[in-house]
Amino acid sequence: MRKTKMSFSTTEPRAGDKLSAAVVTVSDSCARGEREDASGPAVAQVLNKLHFQVVAREVVADDLVKIQNLLIRLAREVRFIATTGGTGIAPRDVTPEATVAVCDRLVDGVAERMRSEGTKKTPFAALSRGVCGVRGRALILNLPGSPAGAVESLEAVAGLLPHAMELLSGKTEHAGSSTAALGRRFPSPAPWSRRRMP
Amino acid sequence: MRKTKMSFSTTEPRAGDKLSAAVVTVSDSCARGEREDASGPAVAQVLNKLHFQVVAREVVADDLVKIQNLLIRLAREVRFIATTGGTGIAPRDVTPEATVAVCDRLVDGVAERMRSEGTKKTPFAALSRGVCGVRGRALILNLPGSPAGAVESLEAVAGLLPHAMELLSGKTEHAGSSTAALGRRFPSPAPWSRRRMP
Amino acid sequence: MRKTKMSFSTTEPRAGDKLSAAVVTVSDSCARGEREDASGPAVAQVLNKLHFQVVAREVVADDLVKIQNLLIRLAREVRFIATTGGTGIAPRDVTPEATVAVCDRLVDGVAERMRSEGTKKTPFAALSRGVCGVRGRALILNLPGSPAGAVESLEAVAGLLPHAMELLSGKTEHAGSSTAALGRRFPSPAPWSRRRMP
Repeated sequence: MRKTKMSFSTTEPRAGDKLSAAVVTVSDSCARGEREDASGPAVAQVLNKLHFQVVAREVVADDLVKIQNLLIRLAREVRFIATTGGTGIAPRDVTPEATVAVCDRLVDGVAERMRSEGTKKTPFAALSRGVCGVRGRALILNLPGSPAGAVESLEAVAGLLPHAMELLSGKTEHAGSSTAALGRRFPSPAPWSRRRMP
Repeated sequence: MRKTKMSFSTTEPRAGDKLSAAVVTVSDSCARGEREDASGPAVAQVLNKLHFQVVAREVVADDLVKIQNLLIRLAREVRFIATTGGTGIAPRDVTPEATVAVCDRLVDGVAERMRSEGTKKTPFAALSRGVCGVRGRALILNLPGSPAGAVESLEAVAGLLPHAMELLSGKTEHAGSSTAALGRRFPSPAPWSRRRMP
Repeated sequence: MRKTKMSFSTTEPRAGDKLSAAVVTVSDSCARGEREDASGPAVAQVLNKLHFQVVAREVVADDLVKIQNLLIRLAREVRFIATTGGTGIAPRDVTPEATVAVCDRLVDGVAERMRSEGTKKTPFAALSRGVCGVRGRALILNLPGSPAGAVESLEAVAGLLPHAMELLSGKTEHAGSSTAALGRRFPSPAPWSRRRMP
């Protein structure tokens, strides 16, 4: 297992309260039971090392609506969702579309970083269309489908995740206004937040 | 003050006619007077060194509509608007959404460059959702909220600004058609230009 | 002519069946016959070296609808379309908008890579708004307008093109489901695929 590339430690335990996470494998063949899921377990292993608590592991077909429904449910249950698979440009690759559809907002820089780091390994990383977005207080991250690609992409941004999740909790300079929101679920996003260009 | 990273000079005076600029601090606590605005003055200082003439300094709350209205007004008055703050992923961070809403078109490469340069300082630069866009002949640039982050992000793209503004003025190979447009204000953007995907 | 920057060879012949390509020069002055098109031939020359077969060369004005109509027609005829010109931020630059409008999905990483490679030559590469997208089984790539910029941007991503086109053909792990689709034309994209944020 490669070391995380970031210069700061990402492996400090989070004082007893691990962040909950779910791993979603998006694959027609895995969903039909024709192929064993290698990427999901690999991603879960990395998350456990990063002191996340992986509380859900799911396999879903390359189906836009099924992926959306799964992400919507999981975003109510965990703070971080990593998907693996379906990020390419083949006709059946719809994981980014499903993710964009359920996210309140996207964090383009995280996807950019996965690709720029990935390009050091293979130029084909540029073809990954994976996105990173926020739904309520959950962060959703699309990883490529291959076990190596998924693990490397996750490790490329792993150092950002704890800080990102703190920000989503409202632990920021905006605390005065957003701690009030911590006790309740976020309402469904305002119309403007669902689209990139109005 | 760090040197601008670009290899060409960005500090040549613009022959008597400085480009007008506005600096907008987006912050709930500054707008309420609970905190002193450190980023706005820091950004203004850099712009003055770059031979912009900062003709407006504004402070606005993290409020989507208030930010939009302010940007719309300033885009009629100045050629360049730098915002600082509200670019993160906390629930109250809406500066990118407000900017996208009022821009005719986005210039993704400028935001990418701010993040890729920023990542050399801190990996958390990837979490900045700041955008760069065009409204009429004004360029709008979202900078992070911290004074250091705002100044470094601005300096990372400072060398592009004069050229970008020349292009917006129609000083290009398209001159034949667009110099005619220089004397009038740009009409409100056509519907297609307001959205990324139709 | 510079060497392609990628570490793997991109010049291996494709076993007899070259991929068909079209080159579109987007320029008011070229369309009016006031200027000779230097970029189109330069791009075509690189594509021929890459063992594409350039079967169409077109010149079109910086006109949103004309560009869209041309791309729609060419996407039925060839597997790869390279445009040159109209990617800047001047008011008449609308090639990215036209491309986005006709594409089923965008491949952001390809545009990011053109810009990040281009920045090594000139910081102004960040101002190029060129996109890369998919329409049916055709890949569309926006290159800058200058001959040098167009050639360098194309070479920066040339190594990705054959693999990208294989993926678009359904030669992937999804083969089971998508080879069935190979014999027919892709239907018009579903509504969700036309937009980035629903």
